[in-house]
Amino acid sequence: MAGSQEERDWLETLRVKPGQKVDLSAWPTADKPNGHDKDAAEARTAEVTQSLAQLQFLLYADARSSLLVVLQGLDAAGKDGTIRKVMSGLNPQGVKVTSFKQPTAQDLAHDFLWRVHKAVPGKGEVGIFNRSHYEDVLVVRVHELVEEKVWRARYDHINAFEQLLTASGTRILKFFLHISPEEQLERFAVRLNDPTRQWKISEADYTERKHWDAYTKAYEDALERTSTKDAPWYVIPADRKWVRNFAIARIIEETLLSMDLKTPKVSVDLEDIRRHYHAAVAAAGADAR
Amino acid sequence: MAGSQEERDWLETLRVKPGQKVDLSAWPTADKPNGHDKDAAEARTAEVTQSLAQLQFLLYADARSSLLVVLQGLDAAGKDGTIRKVMSGLNPQGVKVTSFKQPTAQDLAHDFLWRVHKAVPGKGEVGIFNRSHYEDVLVVRVHELVEEKVWRARYDHINAFEQLLTASGTRILKFFLHISPEEQLERFAVRLNDPTRQWKISEADYTERKHWDAYTKAYEDALERTSTKDAPWYVIPADRKWVRNFAIARIIEETLLSMDLKTPKVSVDLEDIRRHYHAAVAAAGADAR
Repeated sequence: MAGSQEERDWLETLRVKPGQKVDLSAWPTADKPNGHDKDAAEARTAEVTQSLAQLQFLLYADARSSLLVVLQGLDAAGKDGTIRKVMSGLNPQGVKVTSFKQPTAQDLAHDFLWRVHKAVPGKGEVGIFNRSHYEDVLVVRVHELVEEKVWRARYDHINAFEQLLTASGTRILKFFLHISPEEQLERFAVRLNDPTRQWKISEADYTERKHWDAYTKAYEDALERTSTKDAPWYVIPADRKWVRNFAIARIIEETLLSMDLKTPKVSVDLEDIRRHYHAAVAAAGADAR
Repeated sequence: MAGSQEERDWLETLRVKPGQKVDLSAWPTADKPNGHDKDAAEARTAEVTQSLAQLQFLLYADARSSLLVVLQGLDAAGKDGTIRKVMSGLNPQGVKVTSFKQPTAQDLAHDFLWRVHKAVPGKGEVGIFNRSHYEDVLVVRVHELVEEKVWRARYDHINAFEQLLTASGTRILKFFLHISPEEQLERFAVRLNDPTRQWKISEADYTERKHWDAYTKAYEDALERTSTKDAPWYVIPADRKWVRNFAIARIIEETLLSMDLKTPKVSVDLEDIRRHYHAAVAAAGADAR
């Protein structure tokens, strides 16, 4: 299920290399995967989500490492949809999704990574962050909720924190869902005219649009400053949902495949257990007589 | 998707009525659902899991109530398998699975419901307990980890706790996965001969078997003392996995259907939002020129 070299080459174009300057206007929002049209990509995504379920079982069995997936993007970029479409086939027993909303008073009484640290996946688990500690250099910066010197210092805090997680066996993948302003507007229009989804609309969805350029700048800095070898950012062309789902599913699959996951050694004396077993069968037979 | 009266009648036979005496030897482990053979039941279960995904979305949107599913059963009864087979289609964003293992030192420094209370689902969420507070009247009783008067008092504590959850909008479903000793032995044998699953075997799986009758008695008391109108126990015939999955999926579906879930009223002025939208479209048009 490892996919073609052509696929892997395309996925690699989405990764922000450590130290690379990021000008988001040069990153496509509506790119298509090399060699796949929509039908082919959807068929591949269906295969890959099956593969993810198997790999998740190995991650759980192996229990030496964990996977943390960070989803970031503007309103309507598709964070919820990605979780629903890419992650729904996983066994919920090994998945922990955390949606970071407005911090509580208790959160604010601590450093900005306090609430995040509590939510990281344990060994064998997949953690999914719907928004994350990156909001503390995004919305917080755009709305000037703290002084500049405070949010500027956070890139280093974030890198040190992610290195701590990496060192204890967590693989980190960070996805920026990159959509165009036109696509966002189109998605808002769809919500506005869909009676089953109107309740999801808030005034903020629209009023935040005037900060588009400020958010873009904040994302560019975050991607530049925090895309590391062990915790890379990927800029996902997210105007088309099928491209987004394919790209994210495949990147997660490649990462899990690279982790050398295996079922653990047997920790008990199987021969002794077999003796137990035969004794139990014999006893059951005696009971039945 | 509500199913036939015949189906509902059969499901109702699995419910422990409040105050009912429970003699587990009289409850089938290998019953079949009225009117369904294996193929028909599996087809129905596939339909029902799709329905559960839709109902979960409504539960999340509605955000006035939550669902707590408690899974109990002896080793190899199928708790993990139920989660994988019945719950994997759910959106992991709204599902929280908690596996209660040996309590930690910190857990033991508190009352037995302390760690459980922290794990209950919030409004809009589905919580799944893989084992639960019931272990405190099961394994704790069988192995005499506390005095009898301590575990005996716990039935009342549990009922009061579950009433608290019910009063704040949590629907509780408790499933006892009822298997025969022969089926358990068969499942251990399968694990023993499957190289990908041998690592899951522990000595305790076998040594616990000698306490079968003590566990049965402890379950009978727990089912009798804590099956209430609002937090019923169901005794699931679990020797056949397809029967187990069908029964549990359908009971959860019936429960969600009975909860009168609906999407919330729109909380914003849609006309005002439409004006925002038209202004944004006009501005986008002006930019494009």
